[in-house]
This record gives sequence, structure tokens and C-alpha cells, in this order.
Amino acid sequence: MMHLNDDRLFPSDPTERGIARALYAGIRDLPLVSPHGHTEPRWYAENANFPDPARLLIVPDHYIFRMLFSQGVRLEDLGVPTVDGAPVETDGRTIWRLFAKNYYLFRGTPTRMWLDHTFATLFGLDELLTEANADRFYDHIAALLETDGFRPRALFERFNLEVISTTDGALDDLKWHRMIRDSGWNGRVVPAYRPDAVVDPDFEGFLGNLDKLADISGADTGTWSGYLDAHRQRRAYFKSYGATSSDHGHPSAATANLSSQEAGPLFDKVRTGKADAAERALFRAQMLTEMARMSIDDGLVLQIHPGSFRNHSPAMLRRFGRDKGFDIPQRTDYVGALKPLLDAVGTEPGLSIVLFTLDESTYARELAPLAGVYPSLKLGPPWWFHDSPEGMMRFREMATETAGFYNSVGFNDDTRAFPSIPARHDVARRVDCAFLARLVAEHRLNADEAHEVAKDLAYNLVKSAYRL
Amino acid sequence: MMHLNDDRLFPSDPTERGIARALYAGIRDLPLVSPHGHTEPRWYAENANFPDPARLLIVPDHYIFRMLFSQGVRLEDLGVPTVDGAPVETDGRTIWRLFAKNYYLFRGTPTRMWLDHTFATLFGLDELLTEANADRFYDHIAALLETDGFRPRALFERFNLEVISTTDGALDDLKWHRMIRDSGWNGRVVPAYRPDAVVDPDFEGFLGNLDKLADISGADTGTWSGYLDAHRQRRAYFKSYGATSSDHGHPSAATANLSSQEAGPLFDKVRTGKADAAERALFRAQMLTEMARMSIDDGLVLQIHPGSFRNHSPAMLRRFGRDKGFDIPQRTDYVGALKPLLDAVGTEPGLSIVLFTLDESTYARELAPLAGVYPSLKLGPPWWFHDSPEGMMRFREMATETAGFYNSVGFNDDTRAFPSIPARHDVARRVDCAFLARLVAEHRLNADEAHEVAKDLAYNLVKSAYRL
Amino acid sequence: MMHLNDDRLFPSDPTERGIARALYAGIRDLPLVSPHGHTEPRWYAENANFPDPARLLIVPDHYIFRMLFSQGVRLEDLGVPTVDGAPVETDGRTIWRLFAKNYYLFRGTPTRMWLDHTFATLFGLDELLTEANADRFYDHIAALLETDGFRPRALFERFNLEVISTTDGALDDLKWHRMIRDSGWNGRVVPAYRPDAVVDPDFEGFLGNLDKLADISGADTGTWSGYLDAHRQRRAYFKSYGATSSDHGHPSAATANLSSQEAGPLFDKVRTGKADAAERALFRAQMLTEMARMSIDDGLVLQIHPGSFRNHSPAMLRRFGRDKGFDIPQRTDYVGALKPLLDAVGTEPGLSIVLFTLDESTYARELAPLAGVYPSLKLGPPWWFHDSPEGMMRFREMATETAGFYNSVGFNDDTRAFPSIPARHDVARRVDCAFLARLVAEHRLNADEAHEVAKDLAYNLVKSAYRL
Repeated sequence: MMHLNDDRLFPSDPTERGIARALYAGIRDLPLVSPHGHTEPRWYAENANFPDPARLLIVPDHYIFRMLFSQGVRLEDLGVPTVDGAPVETDGRTIWRLFAKNYYLFRGTPTRMWLDHTFATLFGLDELLTEANADRFYDHIAALLETDGFRPRALFERFNLEVISTTDGALDDLKWHRMIRDSGWNGRVVPAYRPDAVVDPDFEGFLGNLDKLADISGADTGTWSGYLDAHRQRRAYFKSYGATSSDHGHPSAATANLSSQEAGPLFDKVRTGKADAAERALFRAQMLTEMARMSIDDGLVLQIHPGSFRNHSPAMLRRFGRDKGFDIPQRTDYVGALKPLLDAVGTEPGLSIVLFTLDESTYARELAPLAGVYPSLKLGPPWWFHDSPEGMMRFREMATETAGFYNSVGFNDDTRAFPSIPARHDVARRVDCAFLARLVAEHRLNADEAHEVAKDLAYNLVKSAYRL
Repeated sequence: MMHLNDDRLFPSDPTERGIARALYAGIRDLPLVSPHGHTEPRWYAENANFPDPARLLIVPDHYIFRMLFSQGVRLEDLGVPTVDGAPVETDGRTIWRLFAKNYYLFRGTPTRMWLDHTFATLFGLDELLTEANADRFYDHIAALLETDGFRPRALFERFNLEVISTTDGALDDLKWHRMIRDSGWNGRVVPAYRPDAVVDPDFEGFLGNLDKLADISGADTGTWSGYLDAHRQRRAYFKSYGATSSDHGHPSAATANLSSQEAGPLFDKVRTGKADAAERALFRAQMLTEMARMSIDDGLVLQIHPGSFRNHSPAMLRRFGRDKGFDIPQRTDYVGALKPLLDAVGTEPGLSIVLFTLDESTYARELAPLAGVYPSLKLGPPWWFHDSPEGMMRFREMATETAGFYNSVGFNDDTRAFPSIPARHDVARRVDCAFLARLVAEHRLNADEAHEVAKDLAYNLVKSAYRL
Repeated sequence: MMHLNDDRLFPSDPTERGIARALYAGIRDLPLVSPHGHTEPRWYAENANFPDPARLLIVPDHYIFRMLFSQGVRLEDLGVPTVDGAPVETDGRTIWRLFAKNYYLFRGTPTRMWLDHTFATLFGLDELLTEANADRFYDHIAALLETDGFRPRALFERFNLEVISTTDGALDDLKWHRMIRDSGWNGRVVPAYRPDAVVDPDFEGFLGNLDKLADISGADTGTWSGYLDAHRQRRAYFKSYGATSSDHGHPSAATANLSSQEAGPLFDKVRTGKADAAERALFRAQMLTEMARMSIDDGLVLQIHPGSFRNHSPAMLRRFGRDKGFDIPQRTDYVGALKPLLDAVGTEPGLSIVLFTLDESTYARELAPLAGVYPSLKLGPPWWFHDSPEGMMRFREMATETAGFYNSVGFNDDTRAFPSIPARHDVARRVDCAFLARLVAEHRLNADEAHEVAKDLAYNLVKSAYRL
């Protein structure tokens, strides 16, 4: 290959590069384990062809349209749908050309690496996308997308995915997962329990969601104990479809440790819709601890993804809706915030909590020290804006000395962009090999140990941490 | 040259170094664009010779005297003037010797790099300054400073400065800029609108300053609308002298989005001098938003320089006045602080805001995500204590993956130290080439793309971002 | 040697490695100066043999048992004593085997480097510890520990320790230090004045401690002036045993600058045990300033070690007591927190304060700018979780450009783990040489200067900063 170099992301120093190559050779063909992602279960259920290149690769990718928007490109011209249905560009080729013309904006970003990798390895286009070759790329990709080899299940298999988890609301009936199971296809696609809509009083439609939760679970969500029962039943239902984790995207990592004498009345007030902001926040905090307690019972791994200021621009939210690139990280505390939960259950055998952050200043200061002592805590990989070569390297450099490798959980791709999954895992594997190569070259780790660690980071840790 | 090595700041790895050299060769002779600095317009207007070496290079340089003070050297012995006129050292040679004897203290600092560069390239002294050669340096530099070739305009031309911006108070009559314009000299020196003294109720003499603002603008600064008009007129006046930007050095990045029904009465209270601390802070915050609104109309680029705790030592302030090395960075929030302004005008076409920070923990967490989506936001270069090789490298490593290169605005020198300007730009160009060389060596960017980016970072981006 | 490579921690790039080797050769045999540690003076006084390998190297080392606990190993199985005397493992060999089996968990951590160094250089075991060779390691080390050459004083001499400071409570009678002095042994072991138990109203037994302070000092600790006198007398007593420093482990860096009219009544209230949380915090804050004032008089260097959330898990505190790996760093402010103290005495000649942090985000933002201007402030080395290769490199990279090398104070080992002291100093010396080698290779520092700086960082700075 010409454009996608086999040595990409390896250190330039020949000694380190040689070690990195050898480490990578030992792991490049390991299956992909994807325990936390946002692909649509419907894709695997229906196994329909994907739409045109722009609709597959550009329109739904917030990394892409946020960068273009930041440089003055209108989201309408990228085909991003409006809330009120105001017309936007619908011609895939037009969108693709606009993107190709601006592809230089992604220099130095992970999006560039993911796309170059996808173009080269998935579509056989091993060259740099430019305005000049945009149409050729478009036609070539469009033609492939119409073939059977590029349907979701075929890609799943081609990607060497051992298992993938989707993320599913607590009220989801998991019909697509049922359809996958009933289809006889042996690809392993499991759900994850994401109850934000029924644990966060600030979620749109929260009170109605509680009613739906009663309907779907058969439990009485008018009482605290019934509400907790509803969660238990939903979790059991998700488990019956293979779920091994729950996932929680709270604004902060705040947890609470209320007695049931306190929690019950708090729930009652929240249930009326009359709780104030502090009470609503306290309820969310308490629910993390409740979920941890349920995890001890049912074994679901608890994932905490805090620290995003969602929908920072109300004008953009009104026009384009959620998840349109306007979620911005903010400073996040863990030491104080997690203490109530940890006081309650932090040393319980069998509890497994995976912590994520958007605030890198907490890696060395808070997260590694916490995960390096509490048996219930593990560190998730660099998340979102930090899911990138420099971000991954900083994570290893800042977390490893205190938490070691074995309190981290390997990689997860956290993506809606299905075709990019191999690229993302490849970046993580290469960066981990680069980090390990430096340790070996500096005689801080033996080469045979590094080979073991590389395999653990690429495959073993994620399987054990997520109980997959 | 012997002491100042041509490969300075390039990575030691031969592959990376070779790439960095090639990149640098393509940009080393590009003109310098200096859109934000603190040199005196009077220098270019009068074009008088600079004073002795100590008064030019040591006495006014807070990087230098703060370091010497931290190691027990008295500011009086460095000739730093006292507020009450108490006598200080006045002999340039004595000050110079004291400095030379302590030059080792600057090992590993950017000051050392800037001075070595200045000594070698400007004065032909390509060796390490020591106590032993202090007098020789002094005599050699002193002799050159008396020649015509070392007057401000000659240096401006020798430095290959295409344009330089000074920073000028809102009440400044810009007489030196007029004198420059009327002189027929074709060096481009433009002002920047710095209204701290008339937007910050905590600024010394604020109320009197508002009266002066009325006098100089002809607007009635006794009313909110008149006060805003006064700003508009002063901005227009600055524009007529070539200004393309305003600059704001608030303690925090706080902004507000008050209605005129709220802002008017707030101004009235501030105007009486009876506003409390919260109201004064709110007024400052509101004024950033007002300045942004005016920017949409008149096209001046808005620069926000927040986060410095000014005059940390009251004793030193009393004895030596402001800007004496006792301004200390502090933790700075942007995500919440900028939201009111961004809600008001953040997606307006034509608005351009350049954000600076003294809190590096915000690069990856807040600033790159914000600039990577809001079309009005761009990232200024590493500022002040971070205007250094390691600081610049951290900026590129932490900001590029989310904001890309094209949401940064290239380099500005931000200095009062005129002779150091080429050195500062040279450091920035070399560090950017070193960063790009690593990306190329690790096959994350093509070499031809890196050449383009190097030119954009050194020259094109700053011109377009500052509309110069 | 085979396992412990002579080039460990040096950069892989051959040019940088060559420079690092040369720099290290010039400092590797310099005596160790250990101005801040937690070894027991009793060891040097009695000079008894150390116990078995597990009790020496595993059971008391919180770095080790916290990591094992985080991976599900019970502290009881590691022999960590319980508060209530509930039985724990007492067989050294059993503990050792459990440790050896899990030694892979320490890959990439400083503990691994320290232990490998100790095994190889102290015990002649130059290979990787594994489950397979655990018994052989145990037997070999156990046999050596029974010999005279492995008694504390012999090790002190073998380690080339020039001086070591212990840390001693204000109420300590220093009998072990007296015994050392009276023994005629010429090893230099000095105490440090650690008054937390009598300055922190939240310390267990605080009020009783004040009574004991009265007894031991003869001063009346029922009054503010008498209480301060008691400190002065204790400090003088410590000085008579060679102390050159005091040490303060407050939760934050908060200081206060109360008048004696304010401080006296505050003390009276604290003395009754009725002060509220804010008053108790204010008292602690005021005492840092009082200690600084006493430092000006008696010359003791003031060390501030803030920012640890102690005993994060109350359950673990109840079962195992303090210092069991559950102290977690938290965000720490310095710019505001230190201002009252600095306003009072920050520019006093002769005052020397060494600042430590557990919050690396303050290195470049707050600590280097503060130490780079206040003559009383110096930066302590990376502390605790940051006493590691990556942590040390980040410190030099983030602090040097603003504070220079000469506002840092060299290395201190800060350890209870006596056998690890040479390993810890060795890591610091190697990392500093690696950092300097890069500066030389990038032509940012001359080689002869780097040799000087390497010696200053390894030996001269710590002696002068701690007045040893």
C-alpha cells in the first residue's frame, strides 16, 4: 500500500519502531471486541445495504460535521436534518464533494486517520481524498455499498468482530436484538442497559417515561420500591439478550448514599415533577449507587460516562436537535463525587465499575489513584475527544504508573460509525504498541512481558472486564 | 555559527530532524506578522536610537527580572524604577554585569533561547554570555545601538516585519500612529483597541476614565446607549488607523447576555461607583458580549486574554507598580463562562473571536472542543508563560486532534521586547516544524501536506484570522 | 548485569542516549541526600537486623498492597495488621509467594523499577521475580537480612547516604535521635518537625495533644502566645538534634494572615473544641503563616505537602487504620491559597518554603509562576504518585521553562521503604539526565552546562535548599 503506511503511528526511532512492529504483529489479527458502541441493532437485524457514501460516512458523523461547521460550512449543506423539517441538501454526491474539498481541515485529527484507513482497507482506495478525486471515490464506494459483501453482517464478519454491544434505552423492547437472535445468524450482538431517560429527571419526557417503564416492566413506578423493581426487571430482560453492562451518561460523576428513608420521599417528590434542581441532581446521584447495588446482584458491569455539557448551543439544539457536535467537556471531579457510592459498595466483591472521563487532568490525579486501590473500579479507555493517538498516549503515560495496565479495560470504539470500527481498534493497538515499545527500549519492561501486555490490552482485558 | 545551532529545537531522531529541516527551510524567510504585541508606537514614530543594552534588554523585561528576583536579586539593583522614586541602580553596565553573572539561571527557559538568538543574529555575538565576557557584550551591543542600522524602523525592516500591531488604550489619541502615518515611512504599524480602563469598573480611575471617554468621543457616557456609542466611535477611530482587532484582559472569561432592560440599569449603578463586586464582574462580562456585537458590525477581531491574577503581591505593587512579574495564572473556565456570549452571537457569520489561556488543562478539555465547533471561535497561540518550546508542543499535541490546525491562528509574539521578536517567531516556526515532522515520520500526514500546513501556521493563518 | 540494564530510562535515540550516559556517569556516584523521608530513627538507633523479606518489603509498602488490593487480593492475606487485632497472615513466605505471583501487575509502575533495582543491586538477584523463583528470592534475601552487612547502619553507609531526615511529631522526645547521637556512629540522621497533631484541630486527640505539648515544652498552651512559644521551643529542640526543616501535610494549601487580635480569639475557641469546620480550617491556615514567621527567625525550611484526601474509605480506615493506600489526590489551588502567607512574609529574605503538589495541572499554571518570582518559594520534586519516571519528566517539562532549574530543590525520596532509597534516587538522576540530554541534543543547552545542572539537581540544590 502507498498512502496508508504499515508503520503508521509507530515511533520514528528505529529501535522503538522495530519493537513496536514486532508487538503489533502479535496482535493485529486478534478479533475485535466492542463492548460499548452506538451502532444500530436494526442494521444487523435487517441486514439491508447501507445508503450512499455521504449518508453512511458524512451526514451522521458528528466529528466530521462539527469541524466543517467550525470553518463556516452550513450543516444544511451537509445534509444534517433539521428538527422542523426545513429542507437540507439531499444529494449525496453534492455533500461528498463539499466534504472532499474540505478534507484538509482534518489534517492531524483522528477522523483523518479513521477515514484514510477505511478508504484503503475497506474500499481499496489507498490514496488521499481530494476535490479532484472526490467523484471517483464516491462512485467507487457507492458501487461497493450496493453489493452483498458490504451489508452489515458481512462487514461484521469481515471486521473480525467477536462481539459488539449496542446501547439501548431502558424502554427499548429490543425487537431488533430479538430479530437478530431469531435469524440464526451467529454474529454476537448484545444490548447495554442505558436508563438515562428514566433516571434523570431533567430528561425530556421523564415523567411519561416512568409511566412507560411501568407498562413495559409491569412494576408500579409510582413507588420507590416499585421503581427499583422495574429497573431490576428491565436489567434482567436485557441480560436475557446477552447484555453484560449498563451505561450512564450523567452531567457529573456525583453519587449519593441515601438511606431508603431518605430516598423514598425524594423519589416521591421527583415523581410529582416538583423537585428542584438540587433534588433532581441528588436523585440522579442516588440512582448511580442503586445501579451499583443492582450490579452486585445481577453482574452487569456499570459504566459511568460523565462530564459532558450537552447541547451547549440552544440555537443549534432547536434547529438540529441533540448530538450535533455541541457537547463540550467540562472539569469533572471524581474523588469527592464517587465517595458516597464507594462508601456504600466500593469494596464489594464482584462489583465492576468502568470509569470514563473527558477531563484528562484527572487521569494521574484522581482516576489512577482511585482505580489503583478500589477493587470495584477500572479505567475505561480515552473517550470521545481523547479517542485519538495523542489522547491515548497521554492516558497510558498518566495512568499506568499508578494504576498499572491491569486496572484499565483495553479499548472500546464508542462509535455510531460502523465502517470506522476496524480503524479505531487499529489506532488503539498501534498506540499501545508504541507506548510499550518505548518501555522496552528504555529497559523498563522486558520484551516478552510487553508481548503479553499487548495481547491483554487488545483482547483479554476487555473480555474479562466486560464479562464477555 | 557555533553557539546558535541551525538544528536547534528539532527532534534528535535523524528521520524527524531531516523532515523538520526541510519544512523549516520552506518557511524560515517568510515575513513576520505580529498581530498582537506591546511595542511602543512612539519608537516607530520618533525612530530614535534605543538606550543602552541594559535599558533595552534587561530593565523592561519581566521574564528576566522576575527570575532574578526569585533567586534573591533586588529589583532595585536591576534598575527597575520605584513608584515613589526611591533611587535604583542607573548604571547600565552594572546592571548588565549582574545579569550576566546570573545568566545560568535561565538555562532551560525561553528567555535563554530568545536572548541567545538575539545576541547571535542581531548583534553578531554567537557565544554564551558569561560573567567573563559581559563587558565585551555590553560594549559591542552599546556601540551598535548608537548606529542608524539599529533604530526602530531599520530593525522593523531587518526583521522582515510585514505588519505589527501595538496595543492601545481606548482613551489613546493615537498620536504616535498618526505621526507614523504622516511620516511617509511605509512600515505597517497598526493599533489594537484595548478598552480595559473603560469597561472594567475595578480599573483604577474607572469613573474618571468614563468622563475622558465622553470628552474624546463626544458621546454621552452618562447613559448606557451613549456609552456604547462612545465605544463604537473609538473603535471606528482605531480602525481608521488600521486597527483590525480589540483586546480584553479580564480576570476570567466570564461573559453575560443581559437584555438592554437589564444592562442599562446595571450601567447606571456602575456609573455611580456603587456597584458591588458581583455587579462589577457582571458588567465586565456583559461588555465582552457587547464588544462581540460591535465586532459583527465593524469587523474588528475580538481577542480574549483571561485568567491572570494580576499584581499578586500588594507589597511589590506598592513599591514597583503593575507588570512587575507578579501576575500569576489561575484556573480558568471557558465552557460555562463563554456560554452567554456564544448563546447571543456564537454562530453569527463574520464574528471572529481569538481565545487565549494560561490554563493548559483547558486545551484538550474545553478550548479545542469549543473552537472545533463554533465558527466564531479560534485558538490563539500558547500565551505568556506557555510561549515556549514545551508549551507550544503541548498546545499542538492537545489542541490539534479536536480543533485541527485551521482553528488555530498561527503565532503572535505578545511582547514589549522588540529585539526578541524574530527569536520568538523563530521558536514557534521551529516547534511547529518539529511537531509536523513527527506526524510525517509517523505517517500521520503526508510531507507535501506538512509543507502547506507549515506555511499556513507561520504566515497564512495569522493574516486571515486577524484580517491583516 | 542482565535484567537491570545500564541504559534503563535513557531515551532510545542514540544521540540522546549517548549524552544521557555521559551526564549520568558524572553523577551516579554522588552521595545521596535525603532531606524528607519516613524511615524510622529507631532503626539507626538500635541497628537491629530487619525482619523477613515480606515484612521488610511487602507488608509496610502502601504502593504494593494498594495495587494488589485493587486486583482483589485481601489485605489480610498480605499480612497488613487490623485495627481490632483480627488475625491476618503471619507467614512471610506465604505473603511473599502471593506477591510474587502477582508481580506482573506492577508492569509499567515505579514499584517495579524500585524493586528490580533493589533485588539486583542490594541482594544480587538480577532477574525478574516470578512465581517460579519466589522461594529462591525469599530464601536468598532472608539469609542476607540476617547478616551484619544488612543492618540499618551498614545499609546507610552502603547506600552512600550523606544525610537522612526522618519525620517526627511535635510531641516526639527524639529519644532515638538522642541514642544515635550518643552512640558515636557518624551517620547523619536528623529529625524534621511535623506538628500536624498540634496544629490541626481535626487531628485525632488534638486537645489532649495540646496538653502534652504544654508538658513537653513547659509553655502554657492555654493561650495563643504560650502556644506559639511552645512551638518555638519544640522547633529549637528539634534544631538541637540537627533538624533543618518543618513539614506540613494539610488537606489544602490554604493559608491565612490574621492579626493577633483575630488569631488569639480563634485559638481560644479552637482550644475549647467548639470551633466549627470553617474555624478549624482557618486555624490550620493561620498556623502555616505562623510557622513561616518562625522559619524566618530560626531558619527551618518550611515544607508544604497539601492536597491529599486522606482515608477516602471509612470502612478501610476502621479495619486497617491510616496510611493504607486510600489517600487520594484532589484538585489543589495555590494562587489564592498561598496569598495570605505570601502577603505576610513572601518576600522576606531568609525564608525558604518548599512546595509539593499532587495536582500536576498546577505545575505550569501556578507553581512555576509562583516559584519563578517569589524568593521564598521553591518547588519540591514530584511527590508520591508522581514520584515516577513519567511524573518526573512531566515536572521538568512543565516547570522548567518558567521556574528554571534553580527554583527546584533536587530530589527527595519521601519513603518509609529504606531498601528502596538508592533505587529512587537512581530513577530521579536518570530521568533528569534524560531530560537534559534532550535539551542538549536539541541544542537548547550546552553539554558542559548540562553536566553542571545534572550535579546541581542530584546533589547541590538539595543541600542548599534544605540547608544541610
